[in-house]
Amino acid sequence: MKILITGGAGFIGSHLTDRLLAEGHSVVVYDNLSLGRLDNIEEAQKNPNFSFIEGDILDKEKFFAVFENNKFDIVFHMAANSDIARSHANPDVDFDNTLRTTYNTLLAMKEFGVKKIVFASTSAIYGETLEKVAETYGPLFPASHYGASKLASEAYISSFCENYGIQAWITRFPNVVGERSTHGVIRDFIKKLKKTPERLEVLGNGMQYKPYLYVKDLVEAILYVWKNTNDKINFYNLGVDSRTRVKEIAQMVIEEMGLNAKIEYTGGDRGWVGDVPEFNYNLDKIHKLGWEAKNTSNEAVRKAIRYILEIDKCNL
Amino acid sequence: MKILITGGAGFIGSHLTDRLLAEGHSVVVYDNLSLGRLDNIEEAQKNPNFSFIEGDILDKEKFFAVFENNKFDIVFHMAANSDIARSHANPDVDFDNTLRTTYNTLLAMKEFGVKKIVFASTSAIYGETLEKVAETYGPLFPASHYGASKLASEAYISSFCENYGIQAWITRFPNVVGERSTHGVIRDFIKKLKKTPERLEVLGNGMQYKPYLYVKDLVEAILYVWKNTNDKINFYNLGVDSRTRVKEIAQMVIEEMGLNAKIEYTGGDRGWVGDVPEFNYNLDKIHKLGWEAKNTSNEAVRKAIRYILEIDKCNL
Repeated sequence: MKILITGGAGFIGSHLTDRLLAEGHSVVVYDNLSLGRLDNIEEAQKNPNFSFIEGDILDKEKFFAVFENNKFDIVFHMAANSDIARSHANPDVDFDNTLRTTYNTLLAMKEFGVKKIVFASTSAIYGETLEKVAETYGPLFPASHYGASKLASEAYISSFCENYGIQAWITRFPNVVGERSTHGVIRDFIKKLKKTPERLEVLGNGMQYKPYLYVKDLVEAILYVWKNTNDKINFYNLGVDSRTRVKEIAQMVIEEMGLNAKIEYTGGDRGWVGDVPEFNYNLDKIHKLGWEAKNTSNEAVRKAIRYILEIDKCNL
Repeated sequence: MKILITGGAGFIGSHLTDRLLAEGHSVVVYDNLSLGRLDNIEEAQKNPNFSFIEGDILDKEKFFAVFENNKFDIVFHMAANSDIARSHANPDVDFDNTLRTTYNTLLAMKEFGVKKIVFASTSAIYGETLEKVAETYGPLFPASHYGASKLASEAYISSFCENYGIQAWITRFPNVVGERSTHGVIRDFIKKLKKTPERLEVLGNGMQYKPYLYVKDLVEAILYVWKNTNDKINFYNLGVDSRTRVKEIAQMVIEEMGLNAKIEYTGGDRGWVGDVPEFNYNLDKIHKLGWEAKNTSNEAVRKAIRYILEIDKCNL
């Protein structure tokens, strides 16, 4: 198959790139390298079935030309802003980089007759709730602009499916950690401890409690859903049943760095505006389909810590 | 109170304008007159508490200046494309006129510290379902770009509420009919019968079955919700318990025009791409709050037919 991966040089996109190339597909990555890195596709570049185009999806002319020059069977649309906290100060970050990139991707698919899309959605569409949310949960009132832009993207994917005979696989990610991640709580803690090894300031009260999914488990899940479902719109929560508290992450980071730092909590039940203090997925639907994560939430966090400390230390 | 009504010269917005002026509020209408009409605010113009500014919300500089020059207590955001069928051919119609107008309104509210918004949402966010949908229905997969743009707008209203301490009243309209409407099935039938009084072509099989709410009942409901709820995000289906089939509308129009036309159905279960053949609201929430529509769906349709035939005939 000929596959376009938008954001394919990014954290999750580049893992997808590697996996789809390994399966023998022909892969074109379109990425503006705002969050993506050429390092992430170093291996892919050696594969004759791979090509990389540096470009922005908002540069419609350039992006449409890629569709004109390639007959794609499917688009994996992974390009997005992924730093949820960032758009509190500037909502345009998500409106442009998350929603408008999706909308332009759909317009290009309509224009050039591409009929399949796999989409990286998020638990953030569900907003703040103590319920163990299943895929049919409502009402949908996201707390962050990131969640809003992803829900808006889902809405447009749905109307494009109905209007132009497109088929979609919407996979809703929880917090994802592991190799090639660009930011997040683990990286923040390591950075802080490099500066002040004797103490660690934690935003909030440390009780935030969420599932962290290992990135390689996530990529397996995306491909599993894509290969094993065939409705017009297929939509699944992807996750792991266990969860990790922020204070546990702090302790694991300190331990893995061999430090004896004192943890100081700033207080309050959330780390930043738009954060939700607790989140829990109902994963019955994906389990019934036959997939489960191999790593627990704590295992995923520990792998992510070790990767940053051992391999990715230059990018800190 | 000092109130901004976007789209306040339009079908529904102008009724709101009249009602809020009658209650003694000071009202500024901002409308680009793409669907709105000066006729609709002829009475309002005589009121010293009223002012009209012709402008497009997408003209950010002009729109923001209105916020700078007025200290609004609340925005009734009614501006939108309202012709659902139109954006099948051009999805930008709803992306620009429905979603981006909402987004710019929210940006202006953030910039100028306006903390309250009443929003015109729609049953179209729920997509195609045979269920009697309540406000907590999920998943939300709208069939039309109109529904997608309204769901996307709700998503952004939600994240702006959470991020900037804004309070929202989201009211979800069904099909609305009555004085000052600009398009829709009733108008289409009348137009066709003016051309060919002996026959009426009906798109679909005529079995489409939906609730039609009388515009003055709708405006009462919007104000009722606004005045009687006080959560961060207040969200209500507005509607009428009865429904009308498209074939009944055809019969009523023929009858009111005193014709003996033959009805010809084009077949299929829907009138246009993105249409849903059946729709039914669960209205328990608004009923429990103490509001019910005064006119049945059939009464609303008949009032709308008579208005077009007797008063609005010049605009056919």
